[in-house]
Amino acid sequence: MQHHTKISQSKRSQKAGLPPGTLVHIGRQRAEKAKITVIDYDETQFTEEHFDSIEACFSFRDKPTVTWINIDGIHDATIIEKMGACYNLHPLVLEDIQNSEQRPKIESYSDYIYIVLKMLYFDEASNAVSTEQVSLIVGHNYVISFQEGLEGDVFGFLRERLRNEKGRARRLGADYLAYSLIDAIVDGYFAILERLGEKIELLEDRLVSNPTTSTLHDIHYLKREMIYLRKAVWPLRELISIFSRTDSDIVQESTRLYLRDVYDHTIQVIDTVESYRDMVSGMLDIYLSSVSNRLNAVMKVLTIIATIFMPLTFIAGVYGMNFRHMPELEWPYGYYMIWGVMIVIAVWMLVFFRRKKWL
Amino acid sequence: MQHHTKISQSKRSQKAGLPPGTLVHIGRQRAEKAKITVIDYDETQFTEEHFDSIEACFSFRDKPTVTWINIDGIHDATIIEKMGACYNLHPLVLEDIQNSEQRPKIESYSDYIYIVLKMLYFDEASNAVSTEQVSLIVGHNYVISFQEGLEGDVFGFLRERLRNEKGRARRLGADYLAYSLIDAIVDGYFAILERLGEKIELLEDRLVSNPTTSTLHDIHYLKREMIYLRKAVWPLRELISIFSRTDSDIVQESTRLYLRDVYDHTIQVIDTVESYRDMVSGMLDIYLSSVSNRLNAVMKVLTIIATIFMPLTFIAGVYGMNFRHMPELEWPYGYYMIWGVMIVIAVWMLVFFRRKKWL
Amino acid sequence: MQHHTKISQSKRSQKAGLPPGTLVHIGRQRAEKAKITVIDYDETQFTEEHFDSIEACFSFRDKPTVTWINIDGIHDATIIEKMGACYNLHPLVLEDIQNSEQRPKIESYSDYIYIVLKMLYFDEASNAVSTEQVSLIVGHNYVISFQEGLEGDVFGFLRERLRNEKGRARRLGADYLAYSLIDAIVDGYFAILERLGEKIELLEDRLVSNPTTSTLHDIHYLKREMIYLRKAVWPLRELISIFSRTDSDIVQESTRLYLRDVYDHTIQVIDTVESYRDMVSGMLDIYLSSVSNRLNAVMKVLTIIATIFMPLTFIAGVYGMNFRHMPELEWPYGYYMIWGVMIVIAVWMLVFFRRKKWL
Amino acid sequence: MQHHTKISQSKRSQKAGLPPGTLVHIGRQRAEKAKITVIDYDETQFTEEHFDSIEACFSFRDKPTVTWINIDGIHDATIIEKMGACYNLHPLVLEDIQNSEQRPKIESYSDYIYIVLKMLYFDEASNAVSTEQVSLIVGHNYVISFQEGLEGDVFGFLRERLRNEKGRARRLGADYLAYSLIDAIVDGYFAILERLGEKIELLEDRLVSNPTTSTLHDIHYLKREMIYLRKAVWPLRELISIFSRTDSDIVQESTRLYLRDVYDHTIQVIDTVESYRDMVSGMLDIYLSSVSNRLNAVMKVLTIIATIFMPLTFIAGVYGMNFRHMPELEWPYGYYMIWGVMIVIAVWMLVFFRRKKWL
Amino acid sequence: MQHHTKISQSKRSQKAGLPPGTLVHIGRQRAEKAKITVIDYDETQFTEEHFDSIEACFSFRDKPTVTWINIDGIHDATIIEKMGACYNLHPLVLEDIQNSEQRPKIESYSDYIYIVLKMLYFDEASNAVSTEQVSLIVGHNYVISFQEGLEGDVFGFLRERLRNEKGRARRLGADYLAYSLIDAIVDGYFAILERLGEKIELLEDRLVSNPTTSTLHDIHYLKREMIYLRKAVWPLRELISIFSRTDSDIVQESTRLYLRDVYDHTIQVIDTVESYRDMVSGMLDIYLSSVSNRLNAVMKVLTIIATIFMPLTFIAGVYGMNFRHMPELEWPYGYYMIWGVMIVIAVWMLVFFRRKKWL
Repeated sequence: MQHHTKISQSKRSQKAGLPPGTLVHIGRQRAEKAKITVIDYDETQFTEEHFDSIEACFSFRDKPTVTWINIDGIHDATIIEKMGACYNLHPLVLEDIQNSEQRPKIESYSDYIYIVLKMLYFDEASNAVSTEQVSLIVGHNYVISFQEGLEGDVFGFLRERLRNEKGRARRLGADYLAYSLIDAIVDGYFAILERLGEKIELLEDRLVSNPTTSTLHDIHYLKREMIYLRKAVWPLRELISIFSRTDSDIVQESTRLYLRDVYDHTIQVIDTVESYRDMVSGMLDIYLSSVSNRLNAVMKVLTIIATIFMPLTFIAGVYGMNFRHMPELEWPYGYYMIWGVMIVIAVWMLVFFRRKKWL
Repeated sequence: MQHHTKISQSKRSQKAGLPPGTLVHIGRQRAEKAKITVIDYDETQFTEEHFDSIEACFSFRDKPTVTWINIDGIHDATIIEKMGACYNLHPLVLEDIQNSEQRPKIESYSDYIYIVLKMLYFDEASNAVSTEQVSLIVGHNYVISFQEGLEGDVFGFLRERLRNEKGRARRLGADYLAYSLIDAIVDGYFAILERLGEKIELLEDRLVSNPTTSTLHDIHYLKREMIYLRKAVWPLRELISIFSRTDSDIVQESTRLYLRDVYDHTIQVIDTVESYRDMVSGMLDIYLSSVSNRLNAVMKVLTIIATIFMPLTFIAGVYGMNFRHMPELEWPYGYYMIWGVMIVIAVWMLVFFRRKKWL
Repeated sequence: MQHHTKISQSKRSQKAGLPPGTLVHIGRQRAEKAKITVIDYDETQFTEEHFDSIEACFSFRDKPTVTWINIDGIHDATIIEKMGACYNLHPLVLEDIQNSEQRPKIESYSDYIYIVLKMLYFDEASNAVSTEQVSLIVGHNYVISFQEGLEGDVFGFLRERLRNEKGRARRLGADYLAYSLIDAIVDGYFAILERLGEKIELLEDRLVSNPTTSTLHDIHYLKREMIYLRKAVWPLRELISIFSRTDSDIVQESTRLYLRDVYDHTIQVIDTVESYRDMVSGMLDIYLSSVSNRLNAVMKVLTIIATIFMPLTFIAGVYGMNFRHMPELEWPYGYYMIWGVMIVIAVWMLVFFRRKKWL
Repeated sequence: MQHHTKISQSKRSQKAGLPPGTLVHIGRQRAEKAKITVIDYDETQFTEEHFDSIEACFSFRDKPTVTWINIDGIHDATIIEKMGACYNLHPLVLEDIQNSEQRPKIESYSDYIYIVLKMLYFDEASNAVSTEQVSLIVGHNYVISFQEGLEGDVFGFLRERLRNEKGRARRLGADYLAYSLIDAIVDGYFAILERLGEKIELLEDRLVSNPTTSTLHDIHYLKREMIYLRKAVWPLRELISIFSRTDSDIVQESTRLYLRDVYDHTIQVIDTVESYRDMVSGMLDIYLSSVSNRLNAVMKVLTIIATIFMPLTFIAGVYGMNFRHMPELEWPYGYYMIWGVMIVIAVWMLVFFRRKKWL
Repeated sequence: MQHHTKISQSKRSQKAGLPPGTLVHIGRQRAEKAKITVIDYDETQFTEEHFDSIEACFSFRDKPTVTWINIDGIHDATIIEKMGACYNLHPLVLEDIQNSEQRPKIESYSDYIYIVLKMLYFDEASNAVSTEQVSLIVGHNYVISFQEGLEGDVFGFLRERLRNEKGRARRLGADYLAYSLIDAIVDGYFAILERLGEKIELLEDRLVSNPTTSTLHDIHYLKREMIYLRKAVWPLRELISIFSRTDSDIVQESTRLYLRDVYDHTIQVIDTVESYRDMVSGMLDIYLSSVSNRLNAVMKVLTIIATIFMPLTFIAGVYGMNFRHMPELEWPYGYYMIWGVMIVIAVWMLVFFRRKKWL
C-alpha cells in the first residue's frame, strides 16, 4: 500500500463547486483506452465479446439472457455517460462511478441496485496491499461492472466457470452473478489476510530475535495497512446485509441464502482484521519493552566496568602520590600486596554483580 | 486553528442570567457593518443585489421565486431581530444565530427548518484550520444564510453556477438551494482533509529522518485540529440524516436523493478523520520509541568509550605508582610490553562490542 | 475541587440498615439554620418573602399563582418532613433530598416531578471546582428547590428577572420556572468550562516552556476535575430529554421547545468536556516525551564530557608511568607534542559530536 | 480480595460431564453444618426460630404470613434438595444455588423468582474485599435466602427492624422483604466503595511523597479489586431493572417504586467504580512518570559529578606526567596557579548547571 | 495454541474461484479414515454402533427414536456429500462443514438447524490451547455432529450418561441432545479458563519475584491465547440466544430453559475472559515499570560509585603532580592528612546518598 499511503484526494477538492452529477474522474490516471467486455449467457448458450465502442453493447439490453458488461477504466467520461443514457442511470450514480475514492456502499433505485466495493491485491513489487474500486449496476437481467483497470481483476475464475460449467451459475439470474462477483472480491480478502498473517509472524520472529528501528517502521506500516483494510471491509458488512434484505425484486429468494454465506465470510474477515490489530498493537508493546531491556543491558555493562575500575584506579592513584612520607611505598612487598588488594576488590565486585544477576 | 485553540467562550458565560431568547453576539468581534446580499431566481430570471439596510430585502418575501438572502456578520442584533420579525422566526433561533459557539444541529419549525453548520478553511498564514459558523433558515421559497463574515465563504462556485447555468440548480426549489449550500460546505471539508493528509505525510517523513521536540509539538497540534474537526463533522451526519428524512413538506422527494449523496460524503469525511486519528496516534508511538532508541545509541557510545579507556587508564595508573620495588619498571622493554597489553585489551573490547552489534 | 477529591461518603454507609425513607442528612454539615425564601408571582403581581419557620409558607400551596419555595440547607430533617407532609411527597423523595451524594436524575410522580441536579462553582480560594446538589420538586403551580446552602447559588439573575421583567418569565407557569432554574445551572457549567479551558491553556504553555513534576500533578488534578464534571453532566442529558418528553401535564407544549434548547446546551457541555479530556490525555503524552527528551539531553552532556576527557586522561596517565625506559619522556619537545596530540583528539571528538547533531 | 485473587474454579471443571441439575457444591468448603433460621411475620405477629433439620420449616409453607427462611451454608446437597422438593424448585435453580461462582442474575419461574447476588465485605485481616454469594427464592408469601455462610451477613439491621418495627416492613409482603435484602446488599457496596476511596487517597499521597515498587503493586491490586467489584456490580443493574419491570404478580406496584430507588443506588455504585478506575489508571501514569523523573534526577547527579571532576582529573594527570621538559613544573607558583585554574573550571561548570536548572 | 499462532488459512485462499457449495477441506489434514459412530436411543432402548461406510447409518433416518450420528474427520468429501444427500442438506452447509476456519454461527433451515462451534482443549505437550471445530445438524429426531477428529472430544461423559441413565437425557428429544453437546463444549471452556487462570497467577508471581524478557514473551503469548479464546466465545452468546429463541418447532419449550442455563454459562465465560484480559494488560504495565525500576537501580549503583571515587581519584591525582613547589608533599603527616580528607569526603557522600534513600 506504499503508493497508497500517499493520501491522494488531489482531484476530489478540484471538484468543489461543480454541480452534483458532473462527471469528473477522481483517482490515479490511466493512459490507455477503456476496455469493454460483454459476457452474455443463459443455461444453454454463452457468448463473450470485446468491444471498442460502447454503443456496440447496447444491443444486449433487451435480451432475456443474463448480460455482464465489464468496463476496465473509469477515466473516460463519454463511455460512462453513454452507459448512463442507455441504462437510464441517475446522474449521481454516474458521478460516483468515476470517483474512485468512494466508500463501499449500496443504493437502491427503482430499476437497478448500485453497489461500490473495493478489490484488494497484494502487490508483490512494493510488498504492500493495493486497492481498486469496483462499481456494480445490478439490473433484472444485467450486471455492469466498472473497474479502474489498474491491475487485472479477481474475476478470472468466475469467467472460467461461466464458460465451462452448465450448472447453477448459468441457470440463475443477474442477482446470482452479482453475488458471484462480490464473493470473488471477498475471497480475495482472504488471500490478503494470509499475506498479512505471514507478515505478522515474520515480524514477531524478528521482534524476538533482533528488534531494530526498521522492525518498528514495519509494525507501523502494517498498522496502516490494517487501517486501510478496515476502511474497505467494515462497510461491506452492512452493504451485504442490506443487499440480502432488500425488498427489490431484483434479488430472488434463493440468492439470499448465498448472500448470507458471503455475509458470514465478511464477518470472518472483520474478525481476523480485529485480531490482527490486537496482535500488532501487542507487538508495539513488546518492541518498546525490548528497547528498554537493551538499554538496561547497556547500562549494566557500563556500571560493571565503572564499578570495578574506578576503585582500582583510585588505589593506583593513591600510590602514585608524591608525598615524602608514604611508608607503604618502602615496604619490600608493598607492590605485590597492593595487587592482592586490587584483585580482592575486583573479585568481590564480580561476586556482587553475579549475586545481583547482572552477570 | 492556532487562534482557535484559544478556547474563547468569554462571551458565553457573560450571557448567564439573561432570559432565553436575548440576542447577544458570542464569538470573535468584527468592526464593519454587516453585508446583505440577495439572490433571487427562477428558471427564467436571475437578480443579485447588495443592500445596506435589511428592510429593503423584505419585499422578496412573498415572491414565488426562490430567494437566497445571505447576511455576512452576525454581531448586529438589530438586523437579526428585524429578519426574525419579518420571517416570523422563534426567539431561540435568533439567539442561536448570534451564538457562534453552536454545535451543528437541525431544528424543524412549522414554517421553516433551522440548520447550523461549521464552515472550515485552511488558514495559510497560521498554517492551521479555522472555523466559521453558518446558520441556514430554509423556508418554502427562501433560504436565509447567516455567516460570521470573517474570511469569505465557500459559496463562490455556487453563485457562479446560479448566475450562468439554466439547468437543475435554477429549476429546483429552496430545498435544493439549501442542499447546494450544505454540499459546498462538505466539499470544503475534503480540501481540509487533503491539507491535513499532506501534513501527516510530512510529519511522518520527519519522524523517520529526524524526530525532534518540534515534531512532537506538531503531532500534538495535529491531534488537536483533529479534535476540532471531529466536533464539526460528527454531528453533521445525524443532521443530514434528519434533514433528508424530515416529514416537513419543505424538502421535496427529488432532493432527498441528493441529500443521501451528501450524507455519503459526510460518512467518508468521518471515516477519513478517524483513519487520520489512528495514524497520528501511531506516530506518537513511533516518536516515543525513536526517543528511546536514540537514548540507547547515546548510552552505547558512552559505554564503549568508558569500557575501553577505564581499564587502560587503570593500567597506566598502576605503573605510575611510586613503590620502591616494582620489577616491571626496570625491564628494558617494559614500556613497550605494556603498550602491547593495552592494545590487546582495546582490540578485544572492540571485538566484544562488534559481536554485541553495538558497532 | 480540592476538598472534593476527599471522597466523602462517610455518612452514606452509616445509613446502612435504616429503613428506606428514613431522613438522614448525607454530606458536608452546616451549622446555621436553614433559610426559606418564597417568591410568588403571576403576570400582574410579585411578592418575595423570607420565613423562619416552614409552616408560614404552606399558605401559598393553594394559590393559583406560581410559587417558588427555595430552601437553603438540607440538614434539617424537620423542615423536609413538614414540606413532605404539606406537599404530599413520597418518603423516598424526602430521603433523596437529604442525601447530597445523589446522581442527577428525574422521577415522575402523579402530582409532581422530582429532579436532582448538580450546581458547579469555581472556588477561587482552592482554585478548584466545587459541587452543590439542588433538588427540584416541580408541581402544577409551584417549584420547591432544596440547596445544600454552602456558597450562594446561580439563581441571582433569575430572581432579578422575575422581580423586574413583566414578560414571558412572569406569564408562563411553574414548568417554565423549572426550566429557568435548570438553564441557570447549565449556564453555570459554561463558566466552569471556560475556567478549565484557561487552566488547560496555561498548562500547555508550561508544558512547552518548563515541564516539571508539579505540571504532572496539575495535569492529574485536571483529569480528576474532568471526571467529576463528567459525573455531573452526563446524566443531565438523559434527564432533560426525559423531562422534555414527559407525558405529565405539568410540562406544557410551549416549554418543551425551551427544554430542547437547554438540551442542546447540555450536549455542547458534554462535547467540550470530551474534547478537554482528549486534550489533557494528549498533554500527558507530551509530558512523558519531554521527560524522556530531557534525559536524552542529560545523557548527551555526560557522554560528550566522558568521551573527550577519558582518552586524554589515559594519555596523561601513560606518560605518568615510571618505566625506566620511556624514550618519549626524554624528547626535548615531547611535552608539547603530547599536548598537540591531545588537542587533536579533543577537536576530532567535538567534530564527531557536531556531526551527530549532539552539539 | 487477596485470597480471592486465587482464581478458584477448581470445582467448576470437575462438574464437567455431570447431567444438568446435578447438585455439586462449587466454591470454598465449610466444615460445619448448615444453619437454618426462619423468620415469620405479619403486621401483628413475629416469630424467629432456629432449626437443625430442614423438614421442621416446611410447616411455614402454607401459612398466609410472610416467611423468610435463611440457610447459611450451601455445601449440604440434602438440604437444598429437600427445599427444592418442598417448594417445587427447578433442578437448574438448585444446581445454581450450590454453585458459588455464579454471575448475578434473575430468572422468572411460574411460582417464584430466582435471584443471585454477590455480598461484599471488607476483610480487615487481609485488607482486601471478599465476596459471598446470596441466592434468593422470592415466592408469593416467602423468601428463601441461601448464603455460603462464610462471614456473617449484612442483614442484621433488617432483622432488627422486622423484630421491633411495626410499620411498612411488617405490613408489606414478600416482595418488599426481597427488596429489603437487595437494598441491604447494595448498601454494603457503599461501605466497600468508601474503603476503596480511602485506599486510593492513601495511595495518591504515597505517590506524591515517596513512590516505590510496593506502591506500584498496591495500585495493581487495587485495579484487580476494581475488576472483581465490576463483575459483581454491573450485572446488578440489569437484574434490578428486570425485577422491577417483571410482569409476575409476585412484585406489587408499590414495591416497584422502592426497586427504582435501589436501581438508582446501583447506578451510583457503578458510576463511582468507573470513576475510581479512571483515577487508578491515572495513578499508574503518575507512577511511571515519577520513575522517569527520578531516573532523570539520578542521571543529573552523575553528570554533574563527572562533568566537574573529569576535566580536573585530566589536568592533574597532565602535571603528573614525567616529561623531562615541562616548564610549568619549574614555575615557583605553578602549583597554586594550577589550583586556580581548576577552581575556575569547577565554578564555571557549577554556573553552567545552575543555568540549565539542574541545581 | 503454539501451533495455532501459525495463522493457517493456506487452504482458504486456494478455494478462491471455486463455485459456492464446492466441498473442499480447509484445515489441518488427517491421514486416517473418518470414524462413524451412531448412538440411537429412546427411553426404553439404547444402541451404539460403529460403521465403516456411511450408507449403513441411513437406516436410522426414519426411526422415531433419537439418533446421534457422530463423524470424526471432515476431510473425506464423499462421506459429507452422501450425508448431505440422505438428510437433504443445503450445499452451503456441506461446504461450511468441511471448512474448519468457520466462525461459530447458527443457521435455520426448514428441516434442520445448522450450528458451528469451537471445542477447546488444553494441549499439555505444547502448554497451549488448541481448537477443534464441531458442526451440528439438529433435526426433529436426529443430531449429526462433525468433528475434525484431531484429539478425541469432550462428549465422553455425555455418552456415558446416555448409556447408563434412564432419566431426562433419554426421555427428551434431539433438541435436548443438541443442548447437551453444546453444554459439554461450554463446560470444556471452564477447564481452559482454570488453566489460563493458573498461568496468570504463575506469571504474576514471576513478575513480582524476577521479571525477565521471557516473562514478557509469556505475557504476549497469553494475550494471544485470549484473542483466540474471545474469537471462539463471543459469537457463542448470540448463537445460543438465537437457538433458544428460534421459532423452529425443533426446539421444544422445556429445552429453552436449559438453553438459558448454558447461555448464562457463556456470559460467565465471556466475563472471565474480559477480566483476564484486563489483568494481563495490567501485568504489562507492571512489567514495563519494573524494567524502568531496575534501570533506576542500576543507574544508582553507577552514580554512587562514580560520585564517591571521582573526587577521591582527583585528589590522588593532584598529589601525584610533579610540581617542584608543593608544600603539602613535604609535610611529615601530609599523607595521613590526605587519607583523612578522602575518608571524610567518602563518608559525607554515603550520608548524602543515605538521605536521598538511594542506599
